[in-house]
Amino acid sequence: MTGDARGWHAGWLPSQAWRAIGTRRVFLPGPSGAGAAVAAEAAGAAGADLVETVAAEIAAAVRTHGGRLDRTGPAGPADLVLALAAAGPGDGVAGWDDLRTEVAGTLGAEGFAITRRAATLVCADAPAGLLHGLFHVLRAGDAAFGAPFGVRRHRPAMRRRMVDHWDNVDVHPVMGQVERGYAGGSLFWTAGAFTADPARIRAYARLLAACGVNAVAVNNVNVHPTEARLLTDRIGEVAAIAGWMRPYGIRVHLSVSFAAPRTVGALHTADPCDPAVRAWWAAAARDVYAAIPDFGGFVVKADSEGQPGPFGYGRDHADGANMLADALAPHGGVVHWRAFVYNHHQDWRDRGTDRAKAAHQHFAPLDGRFRDTVIVQVKHGPVDFQTREPVSPVIAAMPGTRLAVEVQATQEYTGQQRHVCYLGTPWSETLGFGWAGGQTVASVAAAGGGLVAVANTGADAFWTGHPLAQANLYAYGRLAWDPALDPCAVLDEWITLTFGAAAGPDAEPRRTLHAIMDDSWRGYERYTAPLGVGFMVRPGHHYGPDVDGYEYTGWGTYHFADRDGVGVDRTRATGTGFTGQYPQPWSRIYESPDECPDELLLFFHHVPYGHVLRSGTTVIQHIYDSHFAGVEQVERMRERWRALPPGGLLSAALHARVSERLDEQVRSAREWRDQINAYFFRKSGVPDADRRALDGARRPVIPR
Amino acid sequence: MTGDARGWHAGWLPSQAWRAIGTRRVFLPGPSGAGAAVAAEAAGAAGADLVETVAAEIAAAVRTHGGRLDRTGPAGPADLVLALAAAGPGDGVAGWDDLRTEVAGTLGAEGFAITRRAATLVCADAPAGLLHGLFHVLRAGDAAFGAPFGVRRHRPAMRRRMVDHWDNVDVHPVMGQVERGYAGGSLFWTAGAFTADPARIRAYARLLAACGVNAVAVNNVNVHPTEARLLTDRIGEVAAIAGWMRPYGIRVHLSVSFAAPRTVGALHTADPCDPAVRAWWAAAARDVYAAIPDFGGFVVKADSEGQPGPFGYGRDHADGANMLADALAPHGGVVHWRAFVYNHHQDWRDRGTDRAKAAHQHFAPLDGRFRDTVIVQVKHGPVDFQTREPVSPVIAAMPGTRLAVEVQATQEYTGQQRHVCYLGTPWSETLGFGWAGGQTVASVAAAGGGLVAVANTGADAFWTGHPLAQANLYAYGRLAWDPALDPCAVLDEWITLTFGAAAGPDAEPRRTLHAIMDDSWRGYERYTAPLGVGFMVRPGHHYGPDVDGYEYTGWGTYHFADRDGVGVDRTRATGTGFTGQYPQPWSRIYESPDECPDELLLFFHHVPYGHVLRSGTTVIQHIYDSHFAGVEQVERMRERWRALPPGGLLSAALHARVSERLDEQVRSAREWRDQINAYFFRKSGVPDADRRALDGARRPVIPR
Repeated sequence: MTGDARGWHAGWLPSQAWRAIGTRRVFLPGPSGAGAAVAAEAAGAAGADLVETVAAEIAAAVRTHGGRLDRTGPAGPADLVLALAAAGPGDGVAGWDDLRTEVAGTLGAEGFAITRRAATLVCADAPAGLLHGLFHVLRAGDAAFGAPFGVRRHRPAMRRRMVDHWDNVDVHPVMGQVERGYAGGSLFWTAGAFTADPARIRAYARLLAACGVNAVAVNNVNVHPTEARLLTDRIGEVAAIAGWMRPYGIRVHLSVSFAAPRTVGALHTADPCDPAVRAWWAAAARDVYAAIPDFGGFVVKADSEGQPGPFGYGRDHADGANMLADALAPHGGVVHWRAFVYNHHQDWRDRGTDRAKAAHQHFAPLDGRFRDTVIVQVKHGPVDFQTREPVSPVIAAMPGTRLAVEVQATQEYTGQQRHVCYLGTPWSETLGFGWAGGQTVASVAAAGGGLVAVANTGADAFWTGHPLAQANLYAYGRLAWDPALDPCAVLDEWITLTFGAAAGPDAEPRRTLHAIMDDSWRGYERYTAPLGVGFMVRPGHHYGPDVDGYEYTGWGTYHFADRDGVGVDRTRATGTGFTGQYPQPWSRIYESPDECPDELLLFFHHVPYGHVLRSGTTVIQHIYDSHFAGVEQVERMRERWRALPPGGLLSAALHARVSERLDEQVRSAREWRDQINAYFFRKSGVPDADRRALDGARRPVIPR
Repeated sequence: MTGDARGWHAGWLPSQAWRAIGTRRVFLPGPSGAGAAVAAEAAGAAGADLVETVAAEIAAAVRTHGGRLDRTGPAGPADLVLALAAAGPGDGVAGWDDLRTEVAGTLGAEGFAITRRAATLVCADAPAGLLHGLFHVLRAGDAAFGAPFGVRRHRPAMRRRMVDHWDNVDVHPVMGQVERGYAGGSLFWTAGAFTADPARIRAYARLLAACGVNAVAVNNVNVHPTEARLLTDRIGEVAAIAGWMRPYGIRVHLSVSFAAPRTVGALHTADPCDPAVRAWWAAAARDVYAAIPDFGGFVVKADSEGQPGPFGYGRDHADGANMLADALAPHGGVVHWRAFVYNHHQDWRDRGTDRAKAAHQHFAPLDGRFRDTVIVQVKHGPVDFQTREPVSPVIAAMPGTRLAVEVQATQEYTGQQRHVCYLGTPWSETLGFGWAGGQTVASVAAAGGGLVAVANTGADAFWTGHPLAQANLYAYGRLAWDPALDPCAVLDEWITLTFGAAAGPDAEPRRTLHAIMDDSWRGYERYTAPLGVGFMVRPGHHYGPDVDGYEYTGWGTYHFADRDGVGVDRTRATGTGFTGQYPQPWSRIYESPDECPDELLLFFHHVPYGHVLRSGTTVIQHIYDSHFAGVEQVERMRERWRALPPGGLLSAALHARVSERLDEQVRSAREWRDQINAYFFRKSGVPDADRRALDGARRPVIPR
């Protein structure tokens, strides 16, 4: 269970992390009486008793660390008591009745309450709450067992906290085994075969549950022919995954092809309004639920980047999504219908067209037309997971629809796990983004379909390719549970759990890890595409710089740099009008080149190189300065890591893996700096104020 | 034999082309007497009697067209007499003895002499000469049977006239079945299996012989593991190909991996100076010649773009090439050792490094060190087959070495057979390029190893993907036989043979084909990379524009465009010094921005956009003008083709194939024009003198 002995890293659950619990005496009522009834009911037909998962975790911890777990009463001199409100330890535990009286019935399906009198008491209405409560105590460590504290309720802000995979079954000739995957192969499939290791999947589910994730989608939203059969004759593989994840409170979902009735079934159409098609999906859903009683639902990418969808039949997205929802609703399933719809054959010459407007144009008019069990899944930004994007205006534009906000943990555009890039920072900013009327991204998601992160965790021993990228997966789960958490505090939790870091900000490896990671996302932004313009990546694989790579293509991602200026005019006054999709005050703020935040200036405006930013420097000098600063920052990051010796839970293997990736990050950052600076110097002709070399020239041309 | 009935186009040998011969009475001495002895000797151990090939061709022609072929004398009232000098028809053929007396012993292994008195007489010293003589009469058509004419000798300028294939055995994951192949799959292999159709290969050999080709290399110079075994356990496949091509006077060659002793053999090294390695190659050669007695030799790409070679052992190219030559020489074989050697991990920041200098730097110092049976194969230009390149200075720099000049018929950088691009024009210019002392490219190649064209003719029914690209293969063979031929006259030959075109410049399809093809190469140059700068192609597949695609990479192909100017300074005075590798007068001419030909200006100089060309227009205005003109030209080409109805040998299928490719050519040319113009307008800020739209803008930005 600890991982390393099995060939994979323990992540944030090394056995050492369980010491605070494992050395103590724990009471958890056993499977009898009223508690058993509740637990069994919650487990339902799927048969997973999460209370027993909690018991197993504690049992392993006390076995390792010398404590004790009692399942039958009286609780006696326990240090830690966990119980369902309906099945508490009863007599002998000081404060239990008060606690239960206060919180019973208020904690929902996953919440818990905690207080400390003589012992630390954790109460939940349902077994999943005990699981999350246990992990809360784990994170708190000894602090959960110090001075007494009053009742604290913990309920997740988001009911659905999902991780998506873009795993293929077959190795795709271009995208490989995992599309945009940078963490070894797939945890589930290898070259067409189902190769999932039950122990590895259970370990994965455990890690996910420990940071709060409760839903997973197993396969790529670009559903190719073999993958389409996961819905039908290969559903057993999905059922197996579901079985291994269920004990950790995780429900499994499946990406499906909208064309399946035609390509997998024998129908001549996939028209969502055709009765035969509706019947086909209803039957398919019944078969899925026969195999997986607690199946979560479908994820669908339709009429996007060539994937089939309702447009081919003259139907709209509501027609398509509702048809699937109707097939799933009798079984308690939902449809995640992705709003990532745009024209990828745009004419680059036509500055009136704007890809950023597409999602709003397609979906806002459909507000209120979706079933309650449809979740429209919206990328956090209007383009495609760039290092810096404004919040997608769709999020504020569909009050009558359940929205989920999709973020990208797999670092397709943020370094592909060869660069350190702690994403808790931008996700936190995104979640806290609000507008007139008091709503925020977090509140919309919480009221709607929750959060989704495309993670592509893989078969790599460190789960995420770069060991430090584990922090992104961890932070995602924590922020989905509580969007108000400080991302640096969340990072600190991960450091403590993963490395058993001694307390105190000056202790290592905590100090070095914060020095490297706290500002790593802004650092990545510094040496890559400036001021929000995005997409200056090598086409196709998206790693490394190519300023003009997409500039003259149909993909709709341009910067319009010429000898005088750069940026995309999205204003209503002179541009594409995209700013008009925002609520106030953002509609006004983004419209104005003076009010627009510097970091998004080139996303919304085309300005001269001499335009003075709110920071007081010109656009061109900012480009130069930030790129030099970014490289200096990663060079310092590497020095810090080199000065940190491995030891304890920071194994030599982990240290070496991070070292080699920091070497690549330095090399790559220098390429980014030199190419961006050379490009903009050649175009603008403006030299650097500090006379640093800008065309990357190492030495003058040699006369011969 | 005519092709179409078998599923492939007849190329330039439709049965109609044989009418002039086939309606007449032909005398060709049969296999008896002195002639038979000569023929048998020439056929040699390989056993192909080319005289019998000539006989079979004539027999088929007369069968179709109603003439007559006599093999036994007297020749009587024949219209056409072909015979070896040693085996002539003797009595009764007016002029034969005079002809023989004049030419016997002067015609070499492939030459022939022709005259017309009462009959047309063709005489050769060896059977291959009769074959080439027959095809000469074919090309002449009725003109060979008109008024009498005196003795004309025809001997090929180049002894070796070779076509290379870059076919793989396995489908390479990136490059596919045929590297840089645009003509369907391979004629030889499919997905790892030997799938050559003997009839198709014979038809291919026949087409090649008819334009004068006498050597073929069957596989990719990038030799992957499976392909390395063609040398050893799969030599039978090469032998089969050789057997089907031998009757047409074509010798087969094989690309081999320099590392074969290590990767195919069990040696620990491939050091060319190691006795065990030398012995391994000697044994390998013996085995090859046991299977293929007239095997031509090896083709080797070593220490280039990652391919193994002598550098890895501290040896040089002469060591490597000579070792292979020693293994082959006892058997009469040669080594084609490619001079395409350069550093493909260049630092783009360092303007002192120059890829164009590499071949000369590597090979010129080795002049005179190669065995007589080593042919150093040099690309015609110093970079890599761009639409326009200066002639490679290596060609003038190695008088003590046998050089072959390599051209590219497969249109990797000239439209990939989706664009019409008649390459006879630039090849003719290249061959005629001369320097102080009187040598020309043609004379160096003729004295050395001849010509090589990378053709990648494929399994496509039209052989070359684009039907009109057949003309390139045809023209290559003809120019290799006689570099002084006018390329437009050669094109005219192809038109006549292929389409049975009625005589006269106004007859169709001749008139339309010339209108489309004569200026097609310069047309392609007009709308692609300007003034010799090259390489503005999308990286990897090389189709379509991407001005900066390679600008910041390690491949060494840059244009250095900034807001003030563009081009690569290769002068001695201020640049990389590449001009110093040329003999006079070119050393002086290229060094001077005023004397340098306009079409190569940006290859040799970095100039301001306002630099005035010798043509009187500025660089920037030339860029705009040529790109608009190029697109207008292809639009007119398409109109001309649409106005030409199919009919006769211009089948509906051929017409449609050309039509669809012209549509793509127009689309692509417009992309090229718009992207090049937009790029240079954005950088230079110079508007078009005629106020045409340059950033491709279709309509103004729409205020909303």
